[in-house]
Amino acid sequence: MTPSNLSSVRALLFDTFGTVSDWRGSITRMGEEVARTKGITDVNWDAFARSWRAGYRPGMARVQSGARPWTRVDVIHRERLDVILENFGIAHEFSEAERVSMNLFWHRLDPWPDSIPGLLQLKKKFLIAPLSNGSLMLLSSMAKRAGLPWDFIFSSDMFKAYKRDASVYLGAIDFLGLQPHEIMMVAAHNDDLQAARSQGMKTAYINRPYEYGSDQDRDFEASDTWDIIADTILDIANTLDCSPHKS
Amino acid sequence: MTPSNLSSVRALLFDTFGTVSDWRGSITRMGEEVARTKGITDVNWDAFARSWRAGYRPGMARVQSGARPWTRVDVIHRERLDVILENFGIAHEFSEAERVSMNLFWHRLDPWPDSIPGLLQLKKKFLIAPLSNGSLMLLSSMAKRAGLPWDFIFSSDMFKAYKRDASVYLGAIDFLGLQPHEIMMVAAHNDDLQAARSQGMKTAYINRPYEYGSDQDRDFEASDTWDIIADTILDIANTLDCSPHKS
Repeated sequence: MTPSNLSSVRALLFDTFGTVSDWRGSITRMGEEVARTKGITDVNWDAFARSWRAGYRPGMARVQSGARPWTRVDVIHRERLDVILENFGIAHEFSEAERVSMNLFWHRLDPWPDSIPGLLQLKKKFLIAPLSNGSLMLLSSMAKRAGLPWDFIFSSDMFKAYKRDASVYLGAIDFLGLQPHEIMMVAAHNDDLQAARSQGMKTAYINRPYEYGSDQDRDFEASDTWDIIADTILDIANTLDCSPHKS
Repeated sequence: MTPSNLSSVRALLFDTFGTVSDWRGSITRMGEEVARTKGITDVNWDAFARSWRAGYRPGMARVQSGARPWTRVDVIHRERLDVILENFGIAHEFSEAERVSMNLFWHRLDPWPDSIPGLLQLKKKFLIAPLSNGSLMLLSSMAKRAGLPWDFIFSSDMFKAYKRDASVYLGAIDFLGLQPHEIMMVAAHNDDLQAARSQGMKTAYINRPYEYGSDQDRDFEASDTWDIIADTILDIANTLDCSPHKS
């Protein structure tokens, strides 16, 4: 039985990086592949992936503060890539065309193992979509390659704002034409859920304690009484009564 | 072999009503079903469907002219529904809740028989999405029910404008971050393709001479030298070298 306070839910919106997709493992693997073709042997690609990601929140913060006009995450990724190629001492190894190609690593992230089975279950009963800071091309390319079965895509460029700005959640609610409590935000990040709850949305936390590896300094567990607290997307499907036996 | 002038195409954007979905047949069938449950016997539901649709362009025109602020097509559909229920002498038969439900007929249109096989072929090679005057909820609900395998959805509420306003095509090009000639507009309506071509997009015409039934007064054939002229979406897939044998 679906918990009675969740019986109104009609749409589930997912954070993507870290919640649905394993960016650290994916970027590490793709970096290692490129290094092998180039004969680069002295780079820790897990550290490279974490360093690349470390430019993400500061890059968005400049847009959120108004210090910079609307800028897609792809541009933020690229600017950070140029910095860390220098920092890791391999800038001379990568041409402009290779950097353009490397930046698309973020379009080719692999999902966590539970993501696709869980989403397929949830899709039987709910509208499912990302609500992500990714761009439309990033999110649709990732979904196409990985087989993420979204009903539609909410990207940051649709709102010209980044989570946790309230305008992103309010914009999604407005597009859906639903009441906030009919929409559930799913994320591995407590602050994303807090922002969604502030707008009246339901919340589901997925524990991804390995997302950042040795850089992880938060989100080891739920920090509030979210409506669902789970270890996998499949757990959420089960809680919402979408198990295979019910289909 | 893909024609050489089309080898740059990476994304195909589809008009939906009439091009992918058979609104007239679908609305007629759903109207007949409702009539049977209510014992209404004297309504020509094909005429009802055509009359409902006849409110569509005038309703959008008031928004496009600026006479009315941005208004979703669902609202335009509902206003027209109230008018034609009167015109057909059956307004007393439908409560507010029943009208709300009936307005969702437009969320449950069936595709033409060639649409899903054609889209599945095209999806192997291209990003595919609607570029439709429908709302996000309309288009995503329709796709979910019918199994339209879109990679993402471009809806009029994303642009707060209706085709054939240039801002819709320009907005889509901007979201995709592609060159206009890398995007192909697919439609059964010559004026939609003209507007897309004006922005540099490639064009594919599908002949749907039965879309409007006895109300059809245009679009019996291609009126210009579109890049592809076809009878079905499968034909377009074949022209773009996406036949099953190539998968």
